[in-house]
Amino acid sequence: MELKRVEVEKDSETNVIIGQSHFIKTVEDIYEAVVTSVPDIEFGVAFCEASGDRLIRYDGTDERLKDQAVKNAEKINAGHFFILMMDGAFPINVMDALKSVPEVCRIYCATANPLEVVVADAESGRGIMGVIDGSPTIGVEDEEDKEERKEFLQTIGYKR
Amino acid sequence: MELKRVEVEKDSETNVIIGQSHFIKTVEDIYEAVVTSVPDIEFGVAFCEASGDRLIRYDGTDERLKDQAVKNAEKINAGHFFILMMDGAFPINVMDALKSVPEVCRIYCATANPLEVVVADAESGRGIMGVIDGSPTIGVEDEEDKEERKEFLQTIGYKR
Amino acid sequence: MELKRVEVEKDSETNVIIGQSHFIKTVEDIYEAVVTSVPDIEFGVAFCEASGDRLIRYDGTDERLKDQAVKNAEKINAGHFFILMMDGAFPINVMDALKSVPEVCRIYCATANPLEVVVADAESGRGIMGVIDGSPTIGVEDEEDKEERKEFLQTIGYKR
Amino acid sequence: MELKRVEVEKDSETNVIIGQSHFIKTVEDIYEAVVTSVPDIEFGVAFCEASGDRLIRYDGTDERLKDQAVKNAEKINAGHFFILMMDGAFPINVMDALKSVPEVCRIYCATANPLEVVVADAESGRGIMGVIDGSPTIGVEDEEDKEERKEFLQTIGYKR
Amino acid sequence: MELKRVEVEKDSETNVIIGQSHFIKTVEDIYEAVVTSVPDIEFGVAFCEASGDRLIRYDGTDERLKDQAVKNAEKINAGHFFILMMDGAFPINVMDALKSVPEVCRIYCATANPLEVVVADAESGRGIMGVIDGSPTIGVEDEEDKEERKEFLQTIGYKR
Amino acid sequence: MELKRVEVEKDSETNVIIGQSHFIKTVEDIYEAVVTSVPDIEFGVAFCEASGDRLIRYDGTDERLKDQAVKNAEKINAGHFFILMMDGAFPINVMDALKSVPEVCRIYCATANPLEVVVADAESGRGIMGVIDGSPTIGVEDEEDKEERKEFLQTIGYKR
Repeated sequence: MELKRVEVEKDSETNVIIGQSHFIKTVEDIYEAVVTSVPDIEFGVAFCEASGDRLIRYDGTDERLKDQAVKNAEKINAGHFFILMMDGAFPINVMDALKSVPEVCRIYCATANPLEVVVADAESGRGIMGVIDGSPTIGVEDEEDKEERKEFLQTIGYKR
Repeated sequence: MELKRVEVEKDSETNVIIGQSHFIKTVEDIYEAVVTSVPDIEFGVAFCEASGDRLIRYDGTDERLKDQAVKNAEKINAGHFFILMMDGAFPINVMDALKSVPEVCRIYCATANPLEVVVADAESGRGIMGVIDGSPTIGVEDEEDKEERKEFLQTIGYKR
Repeated sequence: MELKRVEVEKDSETNVIIGQSHFIKTVEDIYEAVVTSVPDIEFGVAFCEASGDRLIRYDGTDERLKDQAVKNAEKINAGHFFILMMDGAFPINVMDALKSVPEVCRIYCATANPLEVVVADAESGRGIMGVIDGSPTIGVEDEEDKEERKEFLQTIGYKR
Repeated sequence: MELKRVEVEKDSETNVIIGQSHFIKTVEDIYEAVVTSVPDIEFGVAFCEASGDRLIRYDGTDERLKDQAVKNAEKINAGHFFILMMDGAFPINVMDALKSVPEVCRIYCATANPLEVVVADAESGRGIMGVIDGSPTIGVEDEEDKEERKEFLQTIGYKR
Repeated sequence: MELKRVEVEKDSETNVIIGQSHFIKTVEDIYEAVVTSVPDIEFGVAFCEASGDRLIRYDGTDERLKDQAVKNAEKINAGHFFILMMDGAFPINVMDALKSVPEVCRIYCATANPLEVVVADAESGRGIMGVIDGSPTIGVEDEEDKEERKEFLQTIGYKR
Repeated sequence: MELKRVEVEKDSETNVIIGQSHFIKTVEDIYEAVVTSVPDIEFGVAFCEASGDRLIRYDGTDERLKDQAVKNAEKINAGHFFILMMDGAFPINVMDALKSVPEVCRIYCATANPLEVVVADAESGRGIMGVIDGSPTIGVEDEEDKEERKEFLQTIGYKR
């Protein structure tokens, strides 16, 4: 078994959510969960079926993002994992809905950062061990940083 | 520290859910969550207590599945992890209930596929890094595959 | 890329919850989720911002626990991860609230045990692969152990 | 405006769940939520569309229960309400899934008891004010009743 | 005590959600839940504080909708109830987030229909008994209606 | 059928939550949900069994609050309803846990205010139509009130 780093290919503004699921119904249910949360969202989702036909199942509302999701699913190729790529919406808009999809086991990450997936590659198959999401921190916020953080969240309207 | 692959021993039809929890109450609460969801389910669940008596705690409604859950818990032996093995029901039937058990942290996977657990084995203890669930994909679905998928889900009655 | 074990520094009674999140709002929302669940809780939470200013963001109600959370966040330093350290409350008191925070992806673990975090360290960044939570089991519970477990849970009042 | 009592017509063993929803997608989503929870469930669900075509929308897996759900929906005829009637499963098996359906506002009741719905009937429309679910109590449990209750729940396997 | 029908004043396209809550924090938490779900939503929310200063508390992103929410809150004036009025989004986009707000007890209704609230008016105070949401049904869907419903939901993209 | 107002008897500081449930397991599950949320909470809960033995089932950690819960359950006596009375904790501390109890249908209200329950009393049985929770509002908050509200929530530590 070998640990490999797989870089997710994406545009810099695109947000990515990666998760573990377990049933062919995944792409239909994630599609419905996503459009129920954000009606006009542009997205693509791909899922690695891990038995039977063993195909990459995919769906979405945007051709480019569907292509990108499939391409990344081919590169990662871990059993029962899914990747959701989206523009014009943020992960927090769809996170609760995704967590509630009954075949979703867990969400590995949600990010617009550069993203690498650590995959265990064995003769039997492949599985996600974790992700490297963005860059390491370079310091600890001070009181001024704290104030700026609070003001920023109030300015963008996310906190009152 | 060494990464080891541990194969889950199970019958081919048996579904397995593996998760991370953190309290001795885990086996009682998972028992209640499971039977509340599917009254006649046959299952066994085992949990690795990680301090104090450090015993494998287990429960269930079926002797064979309880034995298998304990055996797999002994092989994996990661702190605070649990394994649920079940016949006559599917993971989607119990997933929401499991996610809501207050001492459950996360679900690693849910599958009837051949399953390997990647365990970090250190002198201090053992922990699950991830799983290898089933086999890699061998292609991308085309339009015909998509149609078959939708028909299949409607035939088994899961999608309208 | 190298796998490294990072030991979480904590007092023996302190409970720790480690999770993956994805937004600077994390510390504010976890703060509110925690105090809404347990009004008088003593805690500190730290979060590794993985882009932009790349600072460790932190908050809490107790100076010592805030310091410890920041110190552990510096040691682990994985993109978009958070660590919550608390006294006077148990993880089950806050778990449901944490799982519902919209920017939280997943909870890695919750424990008062000695805890090591397995981190993948690459030139691009760092990510959590898993945890080693407590010590391995040394046996399987027998009927007497089962009875003691049930009595214990009823004595502390957690099960009826 | 007049308050009217409408008796739900049902077989004595049939369980009924009545709720408030708000979208034509209700019958499809409840269908999927129910079969995802209990694969072999026999049920019928009817929903009163309150604008546009203003039809009773219905679905299910059993003709008799679909007929009964439609018949009760006609009698109650409150805007945006739904009624789910089921055999071979209990409300607790599907309750969590129903509460999570995004267009469901609230669940009025779940019961196998004789059931009356209190409807406000105005010229503009009709709405559910509440339900009369079963019969009034005739006493308070004593210590012996408490013991019997606990034993009963353990005997049927719902509590450990 | 008298039962009164209070008509909600709203534009025909505006969606309204009415619920029961219990804490002055309601308007802040609903504000955050709503903007987290749909970033660009136009809305107003008003809440009837039922003790202490006994003021109508309100917030939102749109002056007109804030005014309308306050005006309807004054008319209904039931203890601890809230009204959320929104344009450019649908109730399903925010429903899950609202149900998860810890001080929200229940959601009475969600609708763009003409809406009346049935209020019990006593000397001690006022409380919501239920709602009359839209118009009564005038028939039962036939097979053709069913097909049209399914096609409609697929056309607007909500079902796959 | 007659509508009756039933005043809940309680100490002025005691918080009350009233809900609709449907199964004898209610008191055990609410007990466990409450103590899991707030370990040292003082509470009593009573539930009106609506068929079979038709007893008021009750539990709790405090004799006085158990007595008060039973007394109020006797006065309200609506089928399948429950009342939870608590000191030393707030409804927001337990609300999420209560909403997740699988046999709980809905929460009518949560309040420390004077509280009346509107009950429909028919020869067949009794049901809750709604509540009158506290007193009507006497004005709309102005900018100064808004500032005080925000400061108050930050002072008590509930909002950041």
